[in-house]
Amino acid sequence: MSKPAIIAPGGRIGILGGGQLGRMLAMAAAELGLNCHIYCPDAEASAMDVASHATRAAYDDADALARFADSVDVVTYEFENVPAETARILAEHAPVRPGVVALATAQDRIVEKNFLSSHNIATAPYADVADEAALLKAVAEIGTPSILKTRRFGYDGKGQAKIASPADALAAYDAIGRAPAILEGFVPFELEISVIVARGIDGEIAAYDPVENIHKDHILDRSFAPARIDKGLADEARAIAAHIVADLDYVGVMGVELFVLREGTAGPRLLVNEIAPRVHNSGHWTQDACHVSQFEQHIRAICGWPLGSPERHCDAVMENLIGDDVDGWAALAAEPATALHLYGKAEARPGRKMGHFTRLYPFGSAPHTIR
Amino acid sequence: MSKPAIIAPGGRIGILGGGQLGRMLAMAAAELGLNCHIYCPDAEASAMDVASHATRAAYDDADALARFADSVDVVTYEFENVPAETARILAEHAPVRPGVVALATAQDRIVEKNFLSSHNIATAPYADVADEAALLKAVAEIGTPSILKTRRFGYDGKGQAKIASPADALAAYDAIGRAPAILEGFVPFELEISVIVARGIDGEIAAYDPVENIHKDHILDRSFAPARIDKGLADEARAIAAHIVADLDYVGVMGVELFVLREGTAGPRLLVNEIAPRVHNSGHWTQDACHVSQFEQHIRAICGWPLGSPERHCDAVMENLIGDDVDGWAALAAEPATALHLYGKAEARPGRKMGHFTRLYPFGSAPHTIR
Repeated sequence: MSKPAIIAPGGRIGILGGGQLGRMLAMAAAELGLNCHIYCPDAEASAMDVASHATRAAYDDADALARFADSVDVVTYEFENVPAETARILAEHAPVRPGVVALATAQDRIVEKNFLSSHNIATAPYADVADEAALLKAVAEIGTPSILKTRRFGYDGKGQAKIASPADALAAYDAIGRAPAILEGFVPFELEISVIVARGIDGEIAAYDPVENIHKDHILDRSFAPARIDKGLADEARAIAAHIVADLDYVGVMGVELFVLREGTAGPRLLVNEIAPRVHNSGHWTQDACHVSQFEQHIRAICGWPLGSPERHCDAVMENLIGDDVDGWAALAAEPATALHLYGKAEARPGRKMGHFTRLYPFGSAPHTIR
Repeated sequence: MSKPAIIAPGGRIGILGGGQLGRMLAMAAAELGLNCHIYCPDAEASAMDVASHATRAAYDDADALARFADSVDVVTYEFENVPAETARILAEHAPVRPGVVALATAQDRIVEKNFLSSHNIATAPYADVADEAALLKAVAEIGTPSILKTRRFGYDGKGQAKIASPADALAAYDAIGRAPAILEGFVPFELEISVIVARGIDGEIAAYDPVENIHKDHILDRSFAPARIDKGLADEARAIAAHIVADLDYVGVMGVELFVLREGTAGPRLLVNEIAPRVHNSGHWTQDACHVSQFEQHIRAICGWPLGSPERHCDAVMENLIGDDVDGWAALAAEPATALHLYGKAEARPGRKMGHFTRLYPFGSAPHTIR
């Protein structure tokens, strides 16, 4: 393997995954004169529509993975559940950014929480649930309400079950298929926020302003930029995110989700909920409200370019178009200060992310009322 | 031919031409959930790298043109020199937007000037030069200095020769290959400006703020947004552009180049230099300084969508990267408020447009000093 550390215009980026994140990464790369090779097993993969090269093969097809990685200057991914063996094969043929340590950390909730705890970053109380006995012990220790989550492959609320009282514990364990799990104490948060942070190959770090996230049916519904928190707390959130990417020797964009707690008369405090080693749905507003979007930022980072400014030039509210929400496209297209982004997916299945839109507002004037 | 008037997300746009304008149109379409089919004879056509479908065939290949137009919901183009017969074939199979009248008008300098004059839009003095006798008569009438230009296929200063004194006339005629030509009186302009205007299928019109253009070696070098003109003149320039697209029953984005003259003690006045029935190099700044770029605006117009707001959220200076200018990419990428756009072209030949960058400034603070 002889690949350049810095990938100049004309270079090629390999992207694992052909969904909307891969698609928006490919378009950001194209704007910088870089071309992309999308690797995805799915019959429909709309990222391939905007990339110069595509491979449709399984994530465990060692030959196809090797050919793919040989054809590109760097490999990145749009989802954290890249199998370890897949990452290992790819890394033999091209740099994988973010690296395999970040991937291994973020794809297992226990490894992630242990990493955060060992770096003195506060999280919700948690316990490893390897079997039924461990579950009962964990419920006794952490108490209820609490949430049982599979260690791996959970997203958008999948692989999760709430435990309202100790009597629910076994039903919850059954509900998640008795998979290796984590029990997390319920956190009475006031806000959910996230920070999109990037780290370059030289260690440079840039973090966007924290945003406030509202979920609906466990799927991100809206992100408000900026979050309704004071500057001190926003700086603290950015510092935590910077701490995480530095400690992981990370290269690329990461999404860091945090809870804001306000307990009694003490000031608010932050807990990290989870990290995503990739561009993140709660950073889509950066496309329209910042000089450099999270997608361009990720491409810059993995190509060894200087990071772009994360400066925000207006307030913004991003809202997802889930399933047949997308049928409202024409009304959104008629709004004067709304940027519409559709993902080119053919079928609007329930729960499927079909697009998003970002409403832009002068500084200080974005609404925060939940409709 | 049965094609929808309004092209919904999922629809397909045919684009004639595979250069940077087609590429940026294809990316703008993809953001709106539309996909593109690029038709281009060139071996290298970087627009194909970001489009789902591509045909590499000659512009006079009637079968390939018919198949191409059958496969799409609407046809548009990135250059005005689409042969009339090509346009006629395409129009039998799909709507062509902007339409064939606009194309015929803009691709012949005499037809264009006659159109403008007949609609009471001021231009430089001009005369049709069909042969040597007509040339000598035209030089006598219009005087010198004047400029002899081929009626067709001129761009970036190609097909032009200056006539400094009547004695130069025949040499100039030889220089342009004695092609059918137009003689234009030299205009002592103070500024060159342009307006990017769009018209929807329902007649809605939206014009961006006029910009000031600086050329180098007959190629656009820089565009300053906004132009250094007062609001009254800017409104007049926008009104002229609106007048033109309305009179042509135009659909899509048009670039209108104008001269600002200041003669004696009278106020400034505007002459139209030329029109381009397509997205225009002097509108690239809209990608980074406006809610909706000229590329998205063109896609909206030809798909029958409502036009986007042309509002500008900052000042901007766009500069082209010609030939090996592009070698400066790394320094530009390190500038915090600079958006870099590279076109994915392999070879940086002299005079070739390889990319552009747009420096963004708070309102009122863009520089206007010519470096």
